[in-house]
Amino acid sequence: MASPSVTKVALVQMRCGPEPEANFAKAVERIRDAAKRGAQIVCLPELFRSQYFCQSEDHTNFALAEEVPGHSTKALDEIARETGVVIVASLFEKRAAGVYHNTAAVIDSDGKLLGKYRKMHIPDDPSFYEKFYFTPGDLGFKAWPTRQGKIGVCVCWDQWYPEAARLPALRGAELLFYPTAIGWHPAEKEKYGAAQHSAWETMQRSHAIANGRYVAAINRVGHEAQAGGPGLECWGQSFGVAPSGEIIAKARVEQEERRMAGVNWQGEEEE
Amino acid sequence: MASPSVTKVALVQMRCGPEPEANFAKAVERIRDAAKRGAQIVCLPELFRSQYFCQSEDHTNFALAEEVPGHSTKALDEIARETGVVIVASLFEKRAAGVYHNTAAVIDSDGKLLGKYRKMHIPDDPSFYEKFYFTPGDLGFKAWPTRQGKIGVCVCWDQWYPEAARLPALRGAELLFYPTAIGWHPAEKEKYGAAQHSAWETMQRSHAIANGRYVAAINRVGHEAQAGGPGLECWGQSFGVAPSGEIIAKARVEQEERRMAGVNWQGEEEE
Repeated sequence: MASPSVTKVALVQMRCGPEPEANFAKAVERIRDAAKRGAQIVCLPELFRSQYFCQSEDHTNFALAEEVPGHSTKALDEIARETGVVIVASLFEKRAAGVYHNTAAVIDSDGKLLGKYRKMHIPDDPSFYEKFYFTPGDLGFKAWPTRQGKIGVCVCWDQWYPEAARLPALRGAELLFYPTAIGWHPAEKEKYGAAQHSAWETMQRSHAIANGRYVAAINRVGHEAQAGGPGLECWGQSFGVAPSGEIIAKARVEQEERRMAGVNWQGEEEE
Repeated sequence: MASPSVTKVALVQMRCGPEPEANFAKAVERIRDAAKRGAQIVCLPELFRSQYFCQSEDHTNFALAEEVPGHSTKALDEIARETGVVIVASLFEKRAAGVYHNTAAVIDSDGKLLGKYRKMHIPDDPSFYEKFYFTPGDLGFKAWPTRQGKIGVCVCWDQWYPEAARLPALRGAELLFYPTAIGWHPAEKEKYGAAQHSAWETMQRSHAIANGRYVAAINRVGHEAQAGGPGLECWGQSFGVAPSGEIIAKARVEQEERRMAGVNWQGEEEE
């Protein structure tokens, strides 16, 4: 199917609670709602089924993982078919005993799982102990020809690497999605918070400019406490950028929101 | 010699007139002035010896070219030795009959020409007809260990390519210089001017963030008329960026200025 000239993209900025099934049900509700409002592609935040468990190194968290394809993609396949939207869903993948990935599934609007991207750049910073959980990806950077346009998907920390944006763009992706879980350390927010957020936004804008592509970053929102730690203040502000680098949709810092961005594959944009 | 912990860098934002010798004399004066004020490294705008002749395709402009090393570097070697500053100078290089480059010379503070970079990404846009004049560079992306710190040099349009920043950074450059000649087409300025400038600034900030390096872009300033054309409105706004992406020095839109940036090789900054 040919891409329509303007595609409506929904960025679902979610607050993720302690109950995976509740988060999943909320995500499904948000996808249905976005579809009703005309969305053709919907992207959810990184690891939206749970709170951001990488704040600590805890073996019990491996129980959150699942196969991909598996339980979640099967349910999302049905939602995609029902609503007719493309879904980008970030999941904690159990590949085999002892081998786990931070994976994004790309589901076409007919319900078919087109494929998956396994996160390549794995952070290991305070409160972001992803190296404890995730093996770096082995599937390369891809572009998927969905029924709503050709898209690329990277995940969160890939955002800091221009190469990660360049490769799917060179493979023809016209829009790059970044499911994200980024936030402030509460103790650092006052001193470094504004600069950290500005650096993050600047990087995604630069990927749009350098590659002449649309870029969308979809973040979680709200403070996620963790026993024994200061927690993480997810900074929301999910946004979409036009190839010019101009921000065409932006969610707020502290609220759950669904932002729509109109992506004109001919290179113009509308809110 | 070990790098001092803070190095003073001067960004010389110049208006370039029709007389090459007058421009050159002005540049020398600016270098001496910067040195008096404590500068240890000075960078001049792209092709500062002349107005931006690539606004048109005109064979007579090849007469502006010179050998590198040659007349200009010989004079600048002496100024570097006299003042004790490192100089980054962008020159129109005549390599051989019919082979010309857009070249940046790196002169150490003892007057030694450390080497040169020949611009790799050659634009060919309206009023930027560089492909008529310049053969793409053949010397790679380098890092030079000057007596004031290890620096990399790219030139203007390289600014839009993350790879061009990555390569000298991977070779150890702690500060990347971009001699620049960028401006608005007068007819487009109102509609696109703000977005174009923002995209330009965003790209350089992203190079600093992505590579954890200081970045400085040194532009010319003022309207440069050309017979038969609308001219080019060089947008000034030369600036320096810290590894965090924060702008630590910025010149104005319409004035000649020398801006100093304090580069702390340990990763902090001061104006």
